[in-house]
Amino acid sequence: MQNRDAGHTPVTVIGLGLMGQALAGAFLRAGHPTTVWNRTAAKADRLVAQGAKPAHSVGDAVAASPLLVVCVSDYRAVRDLLDPLGDALDGRVLVNLTSGTSAQARETADWAARRGVTYLDGAIMAVPAGIGTAEAVLLYSGPRSAFDRYEPALRGLGAGTTYLGGDHGLSSLYDVAILGVMWSVLNGFLHGAALLGTAGVDAGAFAPFASTSIGTVTGWLAGYARQIDDGTYPADDATIDTHLAAMDHLVHESESVGVNAELPRLIKALTDRAIADGRGGDSYAAMIERFRAPR
Amino acid sequence: MQNRDAGHTPVTVIGLGLMGQALAGAFLRAGHPTTVWNRTAAKADRLVAQGAKPAHSVGDAVAASPLLVVCVSDYRAVRDLLDPLGDALDGRVLVNLTSGTSAQARETADWAARRGVTYLDGAIMAVPAGIGTAEAVLLYSGPRSAFDRYEPALRGLGAGTTYLGGDHGLSSLYDVAILGVMWSVLNGFLHGAALLGTAGVDAGAFAPFASTSIGTVTGWLAGYARQIDDGTYPADDATIDTHLAAMDHLVHESESVGVNAELPRLIKALTDRAIADGRGGDSYAAMIERFRAPR
Ligand SMILES: NC(=O)c1ccc[n+]([C@@H]2O[C@H](COP(=O)([O-])OP(=O)(O)OC[C@H]3O[C@@H](n4cnc5c(N)ncnc54)[C@H](OP(=O)(O)O)[C@@H]3O)[C@@H](O)[C@H]2O)c1
Ligand SMILES: NC(=O)c1ccc[n+]([C@@H]2O[C@H](COP(=O)([O-])OP(=O)(O)OC[C@H]3O[C@@H](n4cnc5c(N)ncnc54)[C@H](OP(=O)(O)O)[C@@H]3O)[C@@H](O)[C@H]2O)c1
Repeated sequence: MQNRDAGHTPVTVIGLGLMGQALAGAFLRAGHPTTVWNRTAAKADRLVAQGAKPAHSVGDAVAASPLLVVCVSDYRAVRDLLDPLGDALDGRVLVNLTSGTSAQARETADWAARRGVTYLDGAIMAVPAGIGTAEAVLLYSGPRSAFDRYEPALRGLGAGTTYLGGDHGLSSLYDVAILGVMWSVLNGFLHGAALLGTAGVDAGAFAPFASTSIGTVTGWLAGYARQIDDGTYPADDATIDTHLAAMDHLVHESESVGVNAELPRLIKALTDRAIADGRGGDSYAAMIERFRAPR
Repeated sequence: MQNRDAGHTPVTVIGLGLMGQALAGAFLRAGHPTTVWNRTAAKADRLVAQGAKPAHSVGDAVAASPLLVVCVSDYRAVRDLLDPLGDALDGRVLVNLTSGTSAQARETADWAARRGVTYLDGAIMAVPAGIGTAEAVLLYSGPRSAFDRYEPALRGLGAGTTYLGGDHGLSSLYDVAILGVMWSVLNGFLHGAALLGTAGVDAGAFAPFASTSIGTVTGWLAGYARQIDDGTYPADDATIDTHLAAMDHLVHESESVGVNAELPRLIKALTDRAIADGRGGDSYAAMIERFRAPR
């Protein structure tokens, strides 16, 4: 199958912002005939100097390659660009690496189905400089056959290229779920650094303690995940009741040394509710129910 | 110096709850002559069967050993127990492993100074079953000389025995700061698992992605700590402005799939304030200022 040859699949990149330029650059370096288009045409110049073919319209860009990669600011921009093309998309594979929500991804999949275009939604867990490296994680969802067909080309964007499943919403969901973990870790660290700063402790002195603690907790996740998937939360380690007493200290400490106590208060409020809900004797994994419940 | 002989320093443990029993058991196993006292005397029975000497009063317990370890529910209980003893504490080293706040630790240090007792405050980052193992982290603050003198005995409680500094508040501050990191990681994971659960994804399928992301972020902490300690936040990776766009997706995603959006909303609210404060072009480390500011 000709398209399995990663070196030769022609690809079109639409949207040459910071990320789109990085994507097109990686395709070029991997040897793909690469067509590029951007609303502000000058952003194509550097890529064209590197061998990319500039398209003079979105229609020309779509006509140039069987594989279309779009990466613009938001889903509204994707539709604004592609809607006017009518049937020109028919038979193409569209890979949308624009960030958005799972609902937007599923809506776009419905729209794509009406246009006869095979649709993969994707999410990029990397900065532009990481594209094409071992560190870059890119997540894809949609029809497996389309992913398999173009996987060699897509893998050139990052070694962490991962197919998640047929539901087009998955890549966006994983994306925000993973980012939420990332901000949570950072905020926990920053809150702790602020607390210790009131006693003259450098953030650099705290970082190794934070890293060790994060490593320890990471070791618990698989076990907690099993409890969540089983729906039973035996407290082999510490109960939610035990956690609460220490959370009280965190809240009081934050208030008394005058650092922002919003994060501790939220941590404790969620736990108070779990206890009110009868979960005090369970492991921390039972807190999943508080996160499942809207409020 | 006789007390440097970890095998022979006589030690008294006051408070034989779950944790106090674990502490006394570890001292016994390490070969220390161990005197124990608990308000509810029966909790000493198992330890006495293992060789501990039961004291008939707190005063007798204090008289029995130069090194006193106290671990009760809270600082109020510590003072209720020890206040009536008057000068009997004079010349002893008191190690308080009861959890509390830095203000309580510093108050207790002042109180101890008035009684002529050398005071170390401590915090236990372990469950009772972890005491005496390689995993147990115990943090100490107060006079270095007292820590050095009894370090061999204290190290028997856990390989992660660490001296933090002379300020008696440090052990409590580190304790809650580290616990805050721990709950933050867990909550980030649970929120993500709840999000993915709406699409039928198991927590077990999410855990490896969360772990990888946590590992990546952990690798950033030392660099962010340097920025915090320098007070400059160059955005070598991503700016706070860039983070905000993705936080919007996390909030909308959470709201639209009907999971609890309080954590995402707090993440975004703190970031909105950092941007309003002119930090949009800085790295995420500049968020430290939002955590330093009470609200
Ligand atoms: N940068 C990162 O670190 C990163 C990481 C992960 C994911 N992402 C995602 O990648 C996507 C692009 O990000 P970026 O960093 O490349 O952003 P960017 O530098 O701001 O570029 C935005 C791109 O979208 C185009 N665009 C916006 N509205 C348009 C419209 N109505 N019609 C046509 N083109 C339009 C822009 O064209 P003009 O040049 O004409 O303005 C530009 O090419 C976003 O969804 C972002 O969340 C970025
Ligand atoms: N368990 C853990 O996983 C863990 C981990 C880290 C830190 N800690 C800390 O260790 C300390 C003790 O915890 P624990 O798990 O041992 O709690 P626990 O099992 O509830 O035991 C509490 C102890 O405090 C005594 N006590 C309470 N009020 C008293 C008073 N007014 N006068 C005399 N004695 C009093 C109790 O005596 P009675 O037996 O007579 O009630 C008992 O010995 C707490 O500060 C806790 O935060 C515990």
